[in-house]
Amino acid sequence: MTQFKLTYFDFHGGRGEPARLALHIGGLAFEDFRFPFSDFPEVRKATPFGQVPTLHVDGVLVTQSDAITRYVGQLAGLYPADAYQALLCDEVMGALEDVNNKLVATFGLSGDALKEARQALAAGPLTVYLAWLQGQLQAHGGAFFADNRLTIADLKVFVFVQSLNAGRLDHIPTDLVEKVAPALNAHCQRIAATPAIAQYYAKFAR
Amino acid sequence: MTQFKLTYFDFHGGRGEPARLALHIGGLAFEDFRFPFSDFPEVRKATPFGQVPTLHVDGVLVTQSDAITRYVGQLAGLYPADAYQALLCDEVMGALEDVNNKLVATFGLSGDALKEARQALAAGPLTVYLAWLQGQLQAHGGAFFADNRLTIADLKVFVFVQSLNAGRLDHIPTDLVEKVAPALNAHCQRIAATPAIAQYYAKFAR
Repeated sequence: MTQFKLTYFDFHGGRGEPARLALHIGGLAFEDFRFPFSDFPEVRKATPFGQVPTLHVDGVLVTQSDAITRYVGQLAGLYPADAYQALLCDEVMGALEDVNNKLVATFGLSGDALKEARQALAAGPLTVYLAWLQGQLQAHGGAFFADNRLTIADLKVFVFVQSLNAGRLDHIPTDLVEKVAPALNAHCQRIAATPAIAQYYAKFAR
Repeated sequence: MTQFKLTYFDFHGGRGEPARLALHIGGLAFEDFRFPFSDFPEVRKATPFGQVPTLHVDGVLVTQSDAITRYVGQLAGLYPADAYQALLCDEVMGALEDVNNKLVATFGLSGDALKEARQALAAGPLTVYLAWLQGQLQAHGGAFFADNRLTIADLKVFVFVQSLNAGRLDHIPTDLVEKVAPALNAHCQRIAATPAIAQYYAKFAR
């Protein structure tokens, strides 16, 4: 049996969370190595690009969050076999990486500079991407982003929308999704209510 | 038969070139819509995020370069069927997107600011990523990045290494690859000599 170790920050979000969810849904046993943010300077030294998540596959270190999510998603049955449906799935994931990159670019800021950058993101790119995501969802039936079933695209959007709504990002209004793309909130609630996902988070609430 | 239209800048490089190569190698007919850089402000208005390449699949507009490259790579037989080999292929593509993002961040600069940013890139991240790519190549037999055969990872590295060597990026030394990761130059020459690729570029030289 393949041994998996996923290394990521100890919180329910970010670039590592979709892979954790996919591994859980697929019933794939893995070492869920979580570390506090304060350990990041040390943890990143053991990575080729100073980034997490990483996945060890039978001891081999692999990087790049979407590559990791796609791989475990494939093993978990959460990635389309049809090439065109896979394209739709990948497009959503790529668009979310655009947004992640824009958000990460604000992480070094503070004070008024952070506030201005975040407000500009909320009014500009975030609004554009959220509206586009809502359009993609609606264009493909309204329930899922691709393949008419749960895929890693749904997991990645779910994690993203939850983090916006939770107010994890200072100066991003927590009602932004509801105002700009309410269908994404309905999608988020449906994904959260999926038995395997509800069960996953219930583990941590004990 | 599916109708494809690829929209990208009129040059042999960048985020659109791997998809062009894959479509050609796979013998997939496509409209190769090329536009001059001066038309970009107009072209981008017709895209959801102001980005190219885009692919129209039977008239449906799709974005995100790696998603597009993976899709046409899949159709062209240039993407691994095995999940782990696909992971290695995707990891290389993701790492190159990291580098693309760092390079694109310097495109708005000029004068000394551009020079400093590019020199810092060359000495820092570019050296790190090139050395890592060389390590990946060597760890998997030295000929290809994944699956012991030509995949879209090879195409993307090939396009990237060629653009560095061609001096398209001011202040990036054209001997950087040769100094840091000479095995990537050997790889680049082998890929260029692949009959389908040599034939592709010969078309333009006529």
